[in-house]
Amino acid sequence: MTQVAETSLHRVVIVGGGFGGLYAAKSLQRSPVQVTLIDRRNFHLFQPLLYQVATGSLSPADISSPLRGILSHCKNTSVLMDEVIDIDPQQQIVKMQGQDIAYDSLIVATGVSHHYFGNDHWKTTAPGLKTVEDALEMRRRIFSAFETAEKELDPEKRQAWLTFVIVGGGPTGVELAGAIADLAFKTLKKDFRSIDTAEAKILLLEGMDRLLPPYPPDLSEKAAIALTKLGVTVRTKTLVTNIEDNIVTAKQGDHIEQIPARTILWAAGIKASGMGKVLADCTGVSLDRMGRVLVEPDLSIAGHPNIFVIGDLANFAHQGEKPLPGVAPVAVQEGKYIAKLITAQLRGNTLQPFHYAEVGNLAVIGQNEAVADLGFVKLSGFFAWFVWIFAHIYYLIEFDNKLVVMIQWGWSYFTRNRGARLITGEGTFGQVETGNGDERSPSERKSPVEV
Amino acid sequence: MTQVAETSLHRVVIVGGGFGGLYAAKSLQRSPVQVTLIDRRNFHLFQPLLYQVATGSLSPADISSPLRGILSHCKNTSVLMDEVIDIDPQQQIVKMQGQDIAYDSLIVATGVSHHYFGNDHWKTTAPGLKTVEDALEMRRRIFSAFETAEKELDPEKRQAWLTFVIVGGGPTGVELAGAIADLAFKTLKKDFRSIDTAEAKILLLEGMDRLLPPYPPDLSEKAAIALTKLGVTVRTKTLVTNIEDNIVTAKQGDHIEQIPARTILWAAGIKASGMGKVLADCTGVSLDRMGRVLVEPDLSIAGHPNIFVIGDLANFAHQGEKPLPGVAPVAVQEGKYIAKLITAQLRGNTLQPFHYAEVGNLAVIGQNEAVADLGFVKLSGFFAWFVWIFAHIYYLIEFDNKLVVMIQWGWSYFTRNRGARLITGEGTFGQVETGNGDERSPSERKSPVEV
Repeated sequence: MTQVAETSLHRVVIVGGGFGGLYAAKSLQRSPVQVTLIDRRNFHLFQPLLYQVATGSLSPADISSPLRGILSHCKNTSVLMDEVIDIDPQQQIVKMQGQDIAYDSLIVATGVSHHYFGNDHWKTTAPGLKTVEDALEMRRRIFSAFETAEKELDPEKRQAWLTFVIVGGGPTGVELAGAIADLAFKTLKKDFRSIDTAEAKILLLEGMDRLLPPYPPDLSEKAAIALTKLGVTVRTKTLVTNIEDNIVTAKQGDHIEQIPARTILWAAGIKASGMGKVLADCTGVSLDRMGRVLVEPDLSIAGHPNIFVIGDLANFAHQGEKPLPGVAPVAVQEGKYIAKLITAQLRGNTLQPFHYAEVGNLAVIGQNEAVADLGFVKLSGFFAWFVWIFAHIYYLIEFDNKLVVMIQWGWSYFTRNRGARLITGEGTFGQVETGNGDERSPSERKSPVEV
Repeated sequence: MTQVAETSLHRVVIVGGGFGGLYAAKSLQRSPVQVTLIDRRNFHLFQPLLYQVATGSLSPADISSPLRGILSHCKNTSVLMDEVIDIDPQQQIVKMQGQDIAYDSLIVATGVSHHYFGNDHWKTTAPGLKTVEDALEMRRRIFSAFETAEKELDPEKRQAWLTFVIVGGGPTGVELAGAIADLAFKTLKKDFRSIDTAEAKILLLEGMDRLLPPYPPDLSEKAAIALTKLGVTVRTKTLVTNIEDNIVTAKQGDHIEQIPARTILWAAGIKASGMGKVLADCTGVSLDRMGRVLVEPDLSIAGHPNIFVIGDLANFAHQGEKPLPGVAPVAVQEGKYIAKLITAQLRGNTLQPFHYAEVGNLAVIGQNEAVADLGFVKLSGFFAWFVWIFAHIYYLIEFDNKLVVMIQWGWSYFTRNRGARLITGEGTFGQVETGNGDERSPSERKSPVEV
């Protein structure tokens, strides 16, 4: 309790430095409160661009910014890199690995992670995309697949290395599929001598009847057409029933298909982070099927008016509407709302319930190609792509490296290059370890020398 | 043998895609030869800037470039991502993990790695800096140390987290010490609330009587003065005799000092990569004390005029001179020389022995501060720093991301910011695992929830 023991100011503790937590902290900087932001990472991650790290366009640092740096001018704010273990709403204490901290108001904004619908063993074979490490793992697999294909003499095995299956046709799946198509059919075309990267198969599988289910149907249609033109095979109404031995089993109605694929990327399910369960256990609040916390009209939780849940972890679904989607603008607006609410309460005032101001939905498909639903107008093609760029630069405004990212984009736009296509990290060399990748036992492999 | 089986052209196989191998391949692009470049990584690494990754200024992709991309316009060149296991000089075959490949001329340029002088167990506690993974590990430790210090209440333990010991006063050690001083005393100054990062101790230990031993003594002197001004404690004639329990034991003459330090970085010793031993075993060539291959005046090895060793792996020390230093310009010139030699030999011509054209020595110390020995002139201060920038941009000319790196530099120069100070990778959270970091047993730590 180093940070707050000495003060008599109202103590706000924020758990999670994503869009929700960060904007709450920033919006409280002129309020008479003492803010502590806890995150187990030391940086804020601009998640909407994570797929560009996974596909070798940007580096992790291009879309990340150290939390301390972003908040260093907020003099009433401390950042703690720690991991929350428990909450005690009676004592008003947050318990971390290293220490405890007391709060007057608590904001929980810890987001969501992947969900494999009861098939957690698919995780090693079909990684998801939530963290920097996830993105680097995807990058490693994608580029290692091309490298291994280049060395593979057996045509069937080679095709399996050149087959990329993306499970889930939401924005992340659409963006990944488009970016991999760009790679295979454009960026890498001249780089290999034995394989023709244009022989790559990129399959995007979606369980619903159309891509981008939350978007208007005509944009879903346009996205599918644009992806197909890029060379992606789009399969809707298709469920993945098994992933084993580098074979994806997909079911479309009565038709069952076995797809040999060495690279399988998961963009299908999400579940709430563990803090949802912690809150349910200590406050009795209800969770939805995905583990998200059902919140009150002011984003607090029932019976605990000083505990708020915002961002992807919150299920805000009043007046019988669908829950607000797990996108950055929702989290940002919620973070700002809570800051205003706490400040108003300290002055003895009240505030209207939270109302989300729709800013639209965007998904990028490839170079010059996106779909956008801005409410008053729906866009596709180059103009939607332009809106997408603009929206992202607007939010990146908090980032020191905005300029660098813009130039990286401009550069790769004109050169069609992707400079960050490094294969790094554990198991870097050679065959990708996809759980059951290499037929040889470790003892059969000769001990390599350093190169 | 997919790549070369069909051709009757002279087959050049290059092992290693560092400066030597890469420049050999590029210089052979118009010769009537078939080139295969083998590397176990898919990218060329601009190693002189690796310390900037370790200290959070640049991202790995900023100083790396995919080998296939660099060589895609060299139509006579194939790139193979594979690991060499053995060489058969009689059959003229290079054996890899996945396949074998035949050569007419072989160029080995696999460089060097760290050396702990018989204390390999120091490796976990005091990591070295040769690969991208090394740099990210250093970055993780440096920034985690500040984070842990911020949470530590015990003043002694806190000081240990704020103590950084760099072992080895060569260019890498000098550059690391200067960069960490910049971090502690400038960049991070406003970011923490409990600690004053200016209380950090940065110790640079060198066994010889001065820093930068290969440089002229007055530049060593200037480097020491500049580092001291930056806040670095420079200790020469100081040998590390033990590293244990987060304590560095240093011996200066008869004086023995115990330095409690949580971050220990190794910039002291190097040894040849394993390919040196492979070559010695199969050709009988002599190695020096560091395992480097003694080469003939034309960089071939004795009795094998078609096997060449270049770059850091070669000991080129004719006419009784000291071996050429392990720096990029030597490797580049050697790579170009071999390309010329092979081309000349194919035309039935001979070539003069290799002669290194001295380009000088450079080491950067901090922002605006460097030392340079250009032979005809010695520089220090801002002007040397300017020469350093210019030299690096000149060599980065092969890189697509030259522009981006320049802008990153310009940006961080004016803002004094280091945007890439992310803590990522294994064991990312909380205490740094330095082999004996956390006093608690794993079972004593509560299972954390996701934040």
